[in-house]
Amino acid sequence: MYFASDNSGPASPAVMTALIKANEGYRMGYGADTEMEEVRARIRAEFEAPDAAVYLVTTGTAANALALATLGQSWQTVFCTAPAHIQQDECNAPEFFTGGAKLTLVSPNAKMTTKELRSAIEAEGTRGVHGPQRGPVSITQVTEHGTVYSLNELQALSSVAKEYNLPVHLDGARFANALVALGCTPAEMTWKSGIDAVSFGGTKNGLMGVEAVIFFDPKHAWEFELRRKRGAHLLSKHRFLSAQMLAYLTDDLWRENARSANAHATTLATGLKQCGVELAYPQEANLVFPRMSRRIHNALLDAGAVYHLWGGSLEGPSDEVITARCVCRLVHFKGGGPVLSRTAQTRDNRLMHKTRRSELI
Amino acid sequence: MYFASDNSGPASPAVMTALIKANEGYRMGYGADTEMEEVRARIRAEFEAPDAAVYLVTTGTAANALALATLGQSWQTVFCTAPAHIQQDECNAPEFFTGGAKLTLVSPNAKMTTKELRSAIEAEGTRGVHGPQRGPVSITQVTEHGTVYSLNELQALSSVAKEYNLPVHLDGARFANALVALGCTPAEMTWKSGIDAVSFGGTKNGLMGVEAVIFFDPKHAWEFELRRKRGAHLLSKHRFLSAQMLAYLTDDLWRENARSANAHATTLATGLKQCGVELAYPQEANLVFPRMSRRIHNALLDAGAVYHLWGGSLEGPSDEVITARCVCRLVHFKGGGPVLSRTAQTRDNRLMHKTRRSELI
Amino acid sequence: MYFASDNSGPASPAVMTALIKANEGYRMGYGADTEMEEVRARIRAEFEAPDAAVYLVTTGTAANALALATLGQSWQTVFCTAPAHIQQDECNAPEFFTGGAKLTLVSPNAKMTTKELRSAIEAEGTRGVHGPQRGPVSITQVTEHGTVYSLNELQALSSVAKEYNLPVHLDGARFANALVALGCTPAEMTWKSGIDAVSFGGTKNGLMGVEAVIFFDPKHAWEFELRRKRGAHLLSKHRFLSAQMLAYLTDDLWRENARSANAHATTLATGLKQCGVELAYPQEANLVFPRMSRRIHNALLDAGAVYHLWGGSLEGPSDEVITARCVCRLVHFKGGGPVLSRTAQTRDNRLMHKTRRSELI
Amino acid sequence: MYFASDNSGPASPAVMTALIKANEGYRMGYGADTEMEEVRARIRAEFEAPDAAVYLVTTGTAANALALATLGQSWQTVFCTAPAHIQQDECNAPEFFTGGAKLTLVSPNAKMTTKELRSAIEAEGTRGVHGPQRGPVSITQVTEHGTVYSLNELQALSSVAKEYNLPVHLDGARFANALVALGCTPAEMTWKSGIDAVSFGGTKNGLMGVEAVIFFDPKHAWEFELRRKRGAHLLSKHRFLSAQMLAYLTDDLWRENARSANAHATTLATGLKQCGVELAYPQEANLVFPRMSRRIHNALLDAGAVYHLWGGSLEGPSDEVITARCVCRLVHFKGGGPVLSRTAQTRDNRLMHKTRRSELI
Repeated sequence: MYFASDNSGPASPAVMTALIKANEGYRMGYGADTEMEEVRARIRAEFEAPDAAVYLVTTGTAANALALATLGQSWQTVFCTAPAHIQQDECNAPEFFTGGAKLTLVSPNAKMTTKELRSAIEAEGTRGVHGPQRGPVSITQVTEHGTVYSLNELQALSSVAKEYNLPVHLDGARFANALVALGCTPAEMTWKSGIDAVSFGGTKNGLMGVEAVIFFDPKHAWEFELRRKRGAHLLSKHRFLSAQMLAYLTDDLWRENARSANAHATTLATGLKQCGVELAYPQEANLVFPRMSRRIHNALLDAGAVYHLWGGSLEGPSDEVITARCVCRLVHFKGGGPVLSRTAQTRDNRLMHKTRRSELI
Repeated sequence: MYFASDNSGPASPAVMTALIKANEGYRMGYGADTEMEEVRARIRAEFEAPDAAVYLVTTGTAANALALATLGQSWQTVFCTAPAHIQQDECNAPEFFTGGAKLTLVSPNAKMTTKELRSAIEAEGTRGVHGPQRGPVSITQVTEHGTVYSLNELQALSSVAKEYNLPVHLDGARFANALVALGCTPAEMTWKSGIDAVSFGGTKNGLMGVEAVIFFDPKHAWEFELRRKRGAHLLSKHRFLSAQMLAYLTDDLWRENARSANAHATTLATGLKQCGVELAYPQEANLVFPRMSRRIHNALLDAGAVYHLWGGSLEGPSDEVITARCVCRLVHFKGGGPVLSRTAQTRDNRLMHKTRRSELI
Repeated sequence: MYFASDNSGPASPAVMTALIKANEGYRMGYGADTEMEEVRARIRAEFEAPDAAVYLVTTGTAANALALATLGQSWQTVFCTAPAHIQQDECNAPEFFTGGAKLTLVSPNAKMTTKELRSAIEAEGTRGVHGPQRGPVSITQVTEHGTVYSLNELQALSSVAKEYNLPVHLDGARFANALVALGCTPAEMTWKSGIDAVSFGGTKNGLMGVEAVIFFDPKHAWEFELRRKRGAHLLSKHRFLSAQMLAYLTDDLWRENARSANAHATTLATGLKQCGVELAYPQEANLVFPRMSRRIHNALLDAGAVYHLWGGSLEGPSDEVITARCVCRLVHFKGGGPVLSRTAQTRDNRLMHKTRRSELI
Repeated sequence: MYFASDNSGPASPAVMTALIKANEGYRMGYGADTEMEEVRARIRAEFEAPDAAVYLVTTGTAANALALATLGQSWQTVFCTAPAHIQQDECNAPEFFTGGAKLTLVSPNAKMTTKELRSAIEAEGTRGVHGPQRGPVSITQVTEHGTVYSLNELQALSSVAKEYNLPVHLDGARFANALVALGCTPAEMTWKSGIDAVSFGGTKNGLMGVEAVIFFDPKHAWEFELRRKRGAHLLSKHRFLSAQMLAYLTDDLWRENARSANAHATTLATGLKQCGVELAYPQEANLVFPRMSRRIHNALLDAGAVYHLWGGSLEGPSDEVITARCVCRLVHFKGGGPVLSRTAQTRDNRLMHKTRRSELI
């Protein structure tokens, strides 16, 4: 019954255990810890990329902004969609870290098409030195609307980018959820589909706060290290990031968590549809966007459900149709949320809504 | 017959005379010249703004980017239209000078409506700390499509901005052309219409390369001076900028040049319409955008006309309809352009088109 | 026997316990967690500053750079010492976060004097718009050389800054060590001594990776929040930062850890002096810089001691005098370090030395 | 008798004539003018560098900051002297254009030695990812103290830089004065001495406001063009810059002006020494820094001399020794300055001194 933001949930027990273990004894700081060596080896193995450069940071915004700054230049424009996290929810971090690059909104939808991408690329970069230059293409997988690009779709988008010699970045805040939804390998969803750099999310899928950045071409390594340090994102006691990521990659925890969350979402979506509730976007991973009357919404709140509204106001006529956003997570936390009275829920929702709609994102 | 970019034309004779005169003797450098004192007094008088802070720079991009950086913050977004010069033709200068602010495209058209502006403002700034914050509104007058906002339209847009406590910037690269088109006073077109800062263009209207930046609230003065110096836009031999601007403001040269250019454009537009040529946008100042078949286009080139295409390719089927962009200027230069053969013209056009469509802007 | 960088040591057991506890159930994300409310209240109480704005980040570099960016402007210069962490060990993060401010090195020593500070301030800001403008003064307490400013010294430096209306920042990466060394209150060492903002360190004193930033004037609050988010330093599962800081402030853990570390250092310094070893700088907190012949150094390595060299090369004549840097920490970890053979130790040291002298800082 | 800042003097008559001529007819804008083609060819010929990339901007600060940003990276440090213009008189423009690079002050003197340079380079770049990385070396020729590096000195400094693979920038605001002082060729003073990029000044030697930036390796060309446009330093009516530079390079005007100015300075220095006045620095080009009692200073003012003080206050005991800074220029302006009464002069000097000591620089 608890479907609020991923960020409100706990970390997986195995992650906490790993942290306790990592707390024993001494390690070299700043990423020279032995756990990081192991993380690097595992990620290279999982991605079938023996030369990949692999780094850890604490936020998805840092992963995205640092990756884009490394791939692009300050006089370029990054191609993304209008609902993209980098456009909507990072308070200009991409612009800051790139030194003032622009974002070109390829599509009003969360999923861009090759036609839209080509058209946007064609429109930019035709004005010589006057306009912004063409820069990286950034694709979000799972998208901000909970949908998943197929491998064919990813490859087609990358092909367009490659025609113009543009690098491709994948915002994989929900990488694992997409991977298990597609049933493919990490290599297939990334470099085999033409992706150059990945923000490989962990925080939304069971970690306390760790995201990896992976460059398949190691030429980016040293620049990234300098940008990370300059961005104040190199942790001194780095072993605590490594330990989390290592637990994540051990015993397939990352896939298990994602599978569980996706299954949970399918159950929810099925149930909602059986009750006649429409979804705003197809449920393909762990996000469900039910559209319902405010009457049903209120009944759900009364029953103890916790989730955020997706646009729309908190009060209104009872027959008004509103959209909710339900984030599903690991089954073992199902039901673990506090059961709130409708009054408390409304207040809580209002608080979240008032100051931070994207808290849910 | 010469209708290429404003930037390809010469400066007014009076401006050259003033430069020669300014070259006599010594002056204090860096804006402390006596000519600048006079420029400041004249602009304050013309704008009925005795406290205005007035500065000179050499490019419109500098005027716009420095003004926006002074009015806004790096975590904000600037509201402008999709065809805006600051969006299309400044190679990310606004992003650079603001330290990474975003540009939100309020409208696909060159003229924004209050409804579009309100809607864009409403959509931003609702995600607490996560999204970009609402920042300055930037309006171009004459617009990039040659149209002119009425005083009512300007006031209505400013009113929307003021509801949200947002400052308003006017990109007046063709300020004089708009002013004489409206037949109003500078004060009416600026602070009386709620404008906080103006890029007051001179280069496109008879100067070698001088634009003024005017803040009606002098609290911005010192910050602007520091930003100008830090941006390497404070000229040491500043008197040569002052002298140009002083000549511009003397004997109504600025209005005369604009009147002449606008009249020239009206004559052209009328003639074209009589020949059955449609205009892509209404002719309201000194820009004319005729739509015609490539056949007519080629005949005009053969007759020695010089202008740029506005989108569209240089070669194609003879019955294809293309849009041209004709910039009209002071009558005393009418006919002063080189008469080029169609071949030369096409080559010239191709050169311009190839590397720099916005060279014409 | 383990005296390598603070960053190589573990977190306090109470901190790990708090993390486990914080992992139960759901919380609001992005700093709206209930633990943060408690952290804020505790810090305000400890600092006797009921209006203080309090924020958490994961690195000292982020704390410093974000605080300085909030206090200053990009056209200013920050006054600090040559050995300052912000100058030496942050890979231009202060320059990046401030948008290009300069750092003026007030003194070659780790402790600046009022005379040096006044002289540096006087020398800057006298060239009108041409030179960098005077900006924040940044003081490190405990200094990078292990010494501690007295309250009188802090007040005197702040007084100089205030004469010129400059804000004062305290880099308190070892805040607790200085506090217990002086035996004063947090208020006395900060706002009562004229400090405007503090980087209140936790990572070097028992946390996994949390530093607070405290502004005594809450007018800086919203700007800091935006800068933190834009810098990608706002953690979604923020409760895990709050929980660490809460444990730190509970049962006086922060002071206990610091007392223990300082006492350990005093024991070490005393022992060294009894053996005739000189110290490069007075031992006043938890850092000891012994100067000794390479012969003694090698004997210590053979005996299993672990520490870094402070300048100087790893190999050389046995009678050459070199300086070591010993970081002492909580007694309950005394002896917890791995006992390495001299060979292993040398190799380890070489590794650390080769790529990262400041790994020890 | 007029020895105030270079920036207070007029442009050479031939330059004004060229401007008038350039004002005839139409030209392509934004640097595609035919005059620029000629400028490029002439500079390549003068520098014996057929592949050099050549650009024009309006200020020395723009030339320096854009060149350094193109040669370096934001996480590096630029090596220069403490009195360097880029350090003292550009209001953080180098930090702004580089995106936050640091400046390391190699020497307190205007002329750096190879020993100082090597020592500064060695001290930086030894802390792995933690410290700023080693970046461009920037040398000023003529130095800010009026002295001139010999070719041997330039080569020796470049050799040190090359040992560390660092690019070398020459701030040649007074390039011509140094060239004629050394009696060498432009190639000898630049690429043959290991210089990679030059700010080739014109403004201080007879132009209204034009500086060239020259890269001997054309790989920097496109990046520079984008940085120039993004910095708002690409002039639309670029022909007016080209025309000035073309006049400068015609009939050896640039060398003639410099020779005349240097000779003037030698006469002044000789006369002063005959009167028993010491110089603070050797006179080697067109700058003279006499040290004299305030009594003599006042007598000179009474006699109508105009110059700025170099440090020191405007009023004081009559036997106090103060340093003046005399900028000599083309003979044909000798005596052209206004003869001011001592009172007027003092007021004028005070005005300059109060707001802008570096106005004189």
